[in-house]
Amino acid sequence: MLNFDFYNPTRILFGQGQIASLSTLVPTGARVMMLYGGGSIRQNGVYDEVMAALAGHSVTEFGGIEPNPSYETLMRAIEQVKSEKIDFLLAVGGGSVIDGTKFVAAGALLDEDPWSIFDKRSANIVDALPFGTVLTLPATGSEMNSGGVVTRKSTQEKRSFMSRKVFPQFSILDPAKTFTLPVRQVGNGVVDAFAHIMEQYLTYPVNAKVQDRFAEGLLLTLVEEGPKALSDPEDYDVRANVMWCATLALNGLIGVGVPQDWATHMVGHELTALYNLDHAQTLAIILPNMLRARREEKRTKLLQYAERVWGLTGGDEDTRIEAAIARTERFFAQMGVGTRLADYGLGADCVEPVIKALESHRMTKLGEHRDVTIEVSRRVLEMSL
Amino acid sequence: MLNFDFYNPTRILFGQGQIASLSTLVPTGARVMMLYGGGSIRQNGVYDEVMAALAGHSVTEFGGIEPNPSYETLMRAIEQVKSEKIDFLLAVGGGSVIDGTKFVAAGALLDEDPWSIFDKRSANIVDALPFGTVLTLPATGSEMNSGGVVTRKSTQEKRSFMSRKVFPQFSILDPAKTFTLPVRQVGNGVVDAFAHIMEQYLTYPVNAKVQDRFAEGLLLTLVEEGPKALSDPEDYDVRANVMWCATLALNGLIGVGVPQDWATHMVGHELTALYNLDHAQTLAIILPNMLRARREEKRTKLLQYAERVWGLTGGDEDTRIEAAIARTERFFAQMGVGTRLADYGLGADCVEPVIKALESHRMTKLGEHRDVTIEVSRRVLEMSL
Repeated sequence: MLNFDFYNPTRILFGQGQIASLSTLVPTGARVMMLYGGGSIRQNGVYDEVMAALAGHSVTEFGGIEPNPSYETLMRAIEQVKSEKIDFLLAVGGGSVIDGTKFVAAGALLDEDPWSIFDKRSANIVDALPFGTVLTLPATGSEMNSGGVVTRKSTQEKRSFMSRKVFPQFSILDPAKTFTLPVRQVGNGVVDAFAHIMEQYLTYPVNAKVQDRFAEGLLLTLVEEGPKALSDPEDYDVRANVMWCATLALNGLIGVGVPQDWATHMVGHELTALYNLDHAQTLAIILPNMLRARREEKRTKLLQYAERVWGLTGGDEDTRIEAAIARTERFFAQMGVGTRLADYGLGADCVEPVIKALESHRMTKLGEHRDVTIEVSRRVLEMSL
Repeated sequence: MLNFDFYNPTRILFGQGQIASLSTLVPTGARVMMLYGGGSIRQNGVYDEVMAALAGHSVTEFGGIEPNPSYETLMRAIEQVKSEKIDFLLAVGGGSVIDGTKFVAAGALLDEDPWSIFDKRSANIVDALPFGTVLTLPATGSEMNSGGVVTRKSTQEKRSFMSRKVFPQFSILDPAKTFTLPVRQVGNGVVDAFAHIMEQYLTYPVNAKVQDRFAEGLLLTLVEEGPKALSDPEDYDVRANVMWCATLALNGLIGVGVPQDWATHMVGHELTALYNLDHAQTLAIILPNMLRARREEKRTKLLQYAERVWGLTGGDEDTRIEAAIARTERFFAQMGVGTRLADYGLGADCVEPVIKALESHRMTKLGEHRDVTIEVSRRVLEMSL
């Protein structure tokens, strides 16, 4: 096991009816800004429940945070925070709203252009506004971690940041609030969580038995519950299991003391930035072929994955590995997420722009061994046409 | 899944060499009291490493905290904290030292007799001194939770408390520092962690798939690594896996959203208070027969435990259940911890005093269904002679 430093102070209030606890979670007397996305929370009752819980608090709103939240939009939120002297943020939505809120929380206290956070690798985040979240879409894990991703539309850049100053103080997870999610978002969420786990699990063995078994437990649960979430959208326990899986997939726990990969995410980010694919779509496209292309370096863990997650014990090693990757692809497809670039109307001419973007962002040595060169990324993209 | 509220802000620094980080973890200018036990830390180098890291800090010492830390001893520590105006505590040792430090942290700020904490169910803990820990014995999980157990020698009472004010700020876990532990403490530690997991896992199903799989992952790891920790005491990875298991066994994570039992612990506490058995010894005696006595109520989870932890799938249900319990007993014995009262020189005459103690502490409706009456506890004790 590798040395590690684990810290996660986010309080999780999980279950039906928990939104009501906002009345005591949000400090009395705070000047609150509620941040949200496209307005689905007005249809599914979340907006009304939040507002009812916050009766007696001073609340202003900032809606319209888009999927892959943009720097341009978030800078408007930061302006509003400053002009209205907001001192508590409440993100109500999915990973994009929460990521965006983290950027606002840190950016509002900076004396320089908040884009500097990316160039300075978050070192200039010395403080942030306190904030909580109400999660409506299980997927990214942002509700219980300290990272975020922001896209600058003007330059088609998608960049990430991480700082212990931007953990949510609390997050409210009510699985019943996910019943009405569109099929596409449910599928994306499950694929996103699955890929997060794989990036931390499927590298090389360091004899970290607990981390491996926790990762496998989450993967098995997603494989069992993901399809049920689509076929029986109002099964509370299914939605609860998916929601808790997605949070634990990226709250730091399964990633401590083990090597991590993240090459799939880095290539995927460029696909989103250039062609506007959903984040999970890019992961479903790239992950299987990233595993195929690096089968030798990942052989031991691929065999463990094949056996423990897919129950594959027959046939020779390469057969088992290919079967496990094929099962992964089939699972993504079962969740309604296409696994080829062609599924999204993209052809061979998309490869070079992605490669150029990776180069310009210095993403030329990715993965747990830093051996995912530009050539490897190109091969993965070509395998994924 | 049941609703839950999870919060755990303790920072974990895990691995070789982490003790050196005390120099920055402990606030500069703090008046530090280092609390420890019987002096083993002077032999295994931990004392010297801690003192070297704290060079430049003002450090006073309080040694002699005993296994099952006593109110009498801890009250002397509280006096010293007050007279020396200590404002930061550092626990260096195992669960007893850490539990004791939590009691000191809370008790030092009370205006009343700290024993009131137990009678008031911790409600009078409104603040506590900040503290960190250096863990030398993986077992109780106290290094990453907010509970503690204290024994009052004069009245032979062993009582527990819990408050979000007494989470350690940080805990340092260096597996290499456990190489020199006596066999008895290694065995006790593994049994203790195993029993903690079982109290949260082996109840009745609520379709909490992640919690079940995490619990099973920890149990499987203890079964694999526990015996190796005895046979090959300097295998770093084995000690690391055991140490991380013991922490995760009782940091709150596997217990969220599921029913919990704890009847074994309550009966065990009385055995320790009356006959001075090690905590883990009492668990090894009581747990197997507590499962046998409640086989019907726990049938579904016992079958899941038999299959997923012990790989038992053949034979009828009752055969599989008894086999799983027998394997559990054999595992405790393999760890060097006797599973009968007779192993510790106790006979039938110990039963009534334990029953009386349970009655006087109102431990008459224990377990996840509150159906472990005095009669059930008596039967379990009689089965364990």
